[in-house]
Amino acid sequence: MTTAQQRTAEVVGDLINTVNERLVKHEVTYGEYQAAKQWLIELGEAGEWPLFLDVFFEHTVERMASERRRGSTGCIEGPYYVPGSPELDSPATLPRRPDEPGDGLVFSGTVRDLDGIPIPGAVVDIWHADANGFYSQFHPDPPKWNLRGTVRADAEGRFEIHTVLPAPYEIPKEGPTGRMITSAGWHHWRPAHLHMMVRAPGKQTLTSQLFFAGHEYVDDDVAGAVKPELTLELVRHDDGHYTAEYDFRLDPA
Amino acid sequence: MTTAQQRTAEVVGDLINTVNERLVKHEVTYGEYQAAKQWLIELGEAGEWPLFLDVFFEHTVERMASERRRGSTGCIEGPYYVPGSPELDSPATLPRRPDEPGDGLVFSGTVRDLDGIPIPGAVVDIWHADANGFYSQFHPDPPKWNLRGTVRADAEGRFEIHTVLPAPYEIPKEGPTGRMITSAGWHHWRPAHLHMMVRAPGKQTLTSQLFFAGHEYVDDDVAGAVKPELTLELVRHDDGHYTAEYDFRLDPA
Repeated sequence: MTTAQQRTAEVVGDLINTVNERLVKHEVTYGEYQAAKQWLIELGEAGEWPLFLDVFFEHTVERMASERRRGSTGCIEGPYYVPGSPELDSPATLPRRPDEPGDGLVFSGTVRDLDGIPIPGAVVDIWHADANGFYSQFHPDPPKWNLRGTVRADAEGRFEIHTVLPAPYEIPKEGPTGRMITSAGWHHWRPAHLHMMVRAPGKQTLTSQLFFAGHEYVDDDVAGAVKPELTLELVRHDDGHYTAEYDFRLDPA
Repeated sequence: MTTAQQRTAEVVGDLINTVNERLVKHEVTYGEYQAAKQWLIELGEAGEWPLFLDVFFEHTVERMASERRRGSTGCIEGPYYVPGSPELDSPATLPRRPDEPGDGLVFSGTVRDLDGIPIPGAVVDIWHADANGFYSQFHPDPPKWNLRGTVRADAEGRFEIHTVLPAPYEIPKEGPTGRMITSAGWHHWRPAHLHMMVRAPGKQTLTSQLFFAGHEYVDDDVAGAVKPELTLELVRHDDGHYTAEYDFRLDPA
C-alpha cells in the first residue's frame, strides 16, 4: 500500500464505517434508504453538489486551513465564484445596472503583509449578491458580471470599492438542498455578505467573506461560516449610503 | 415541527455533524475536499449512486430490516434487479445463449410459510451474473433477460431452476466507485451469488442472495453482505453439473 492509498483507506473507510454506525443508531429503514438514494441522485442532476457541500461542510475545512496561516482569517469560498471578472483600478465602481436596487456601499481598506507593510497593486477579486439576494451568472435577473470585479489596489495598497449593500442570501427552496432543509424544518438563510479573493505576487491568496454587525442571520448562518473578526461595523451617512472598512493581511506564499 | 421534520432533522443533522467531526479528526485539506466534491459529481454522472450505496451501505439497512422479520433472512438487493423478466413454470431453464459459458447449476427447493407449509404457485424472481461476472441489461455482452427469470413454483411449492454457475462479480474499475476502491487499495470483488425476490399472495416479499461455501471472496465480500445461513453447499455430479438446494420461508404480509 502506498501512503496515498493508506490516507484514502483511512479517511474513506472511517467515513463509510461511521455512516453505517449512524444508520444503525437511527434504525434507518429501507424506505428512508431509498429516499436518500433518490435525493443524492437528484442533488447531482440539479448541479447542487457545490451548494450542498459548501453550505454544510466547507466551513469545517476552511477553519482548519485558516489555522495553518498567520494572516487574516479566511472564510468559505461558496459555490458562486466566477474567475475572470472585469479588471478595475481603485477607486472602482463594480458593474451594476442603471437602476441597481439597494443602498450604496463604499468598501475600503488596505492590503498588507504580515508586518503591516502595504502591498502596492494587490488585487481584491470581489463578488456578492444584489439587494434581492441574487448572484449574477447563477440567477437570470442580474446581467453578466453584475456586482463582480477584480479591483487593483493603488500604490499604497489601498482599495476603495463602490457597490450596493447585498441582501441576505436564501438557498433556493425548490432544489434538492433547499427541499432537504425544508424537510428538516431548518431555515434557508445566510446573512448578507461580501465575498473576496485577495491576491498579490509572492503571497498566499486569501479567500474570505465579510459580514455586517447586527444584521439578520449573522448569529444563525445556515452555512455556519460567520466569524466575529469578519463582521464589520457599517457606518450610515447622511445621504443614505454606507461605508465599511477592512484591512487584509496576506501570508507569504 | 412535524414528526417527519423531527426525524429528518435528527438523522440528517446527526450525519452532517458526524461527517464534520470526521473531517476535523482526519484534518482533511482543501485539496482533499475539492477532490471529494469532484468525485461525488462524477459518481452521479456515471449513474453509480445505486452501485456505491448498495455496495457500502445497503447491508446495514438490510440487516436491520431482516431482524424485524421471522422468515428466511434476506440479503441486499443490489443495483442490478430488473422487474418483468420472462415468466416460467417450474422446472424452468433460465434464458441463456446457445453457447452460454460455465458449468450447469440446478437450484431447487420449496417456498414455505412460517409453519413450514408449502405455498403453491409462489414465485422465485431470480437474476445473476454469467460465468464472466456480467449481468444482462447492465453489460453489453449478455443479451436481454439472459440468466433472469420469474419462476412459478409447482402445486407443492417446489421450484427447480436450471441455469449456470455465476462467477464472482468485480465492481467495474473504470467507474468512480471502482476508482475509489482502487485508491484505497481495497479489492473489487463480490463472491459468486444468486439474487432472488420470492413472492406469494398474502406474504411479504423476500429479497435475498445465496452464496456457495468455500468459494472465493465468500469470507471477504466487498459489499459485506454474506451471511452464513445464505451460504449453500454445492454438490458436483459426475457429468460436471452442480446442484444446490434452499427452502424459503415467507412472513405474512
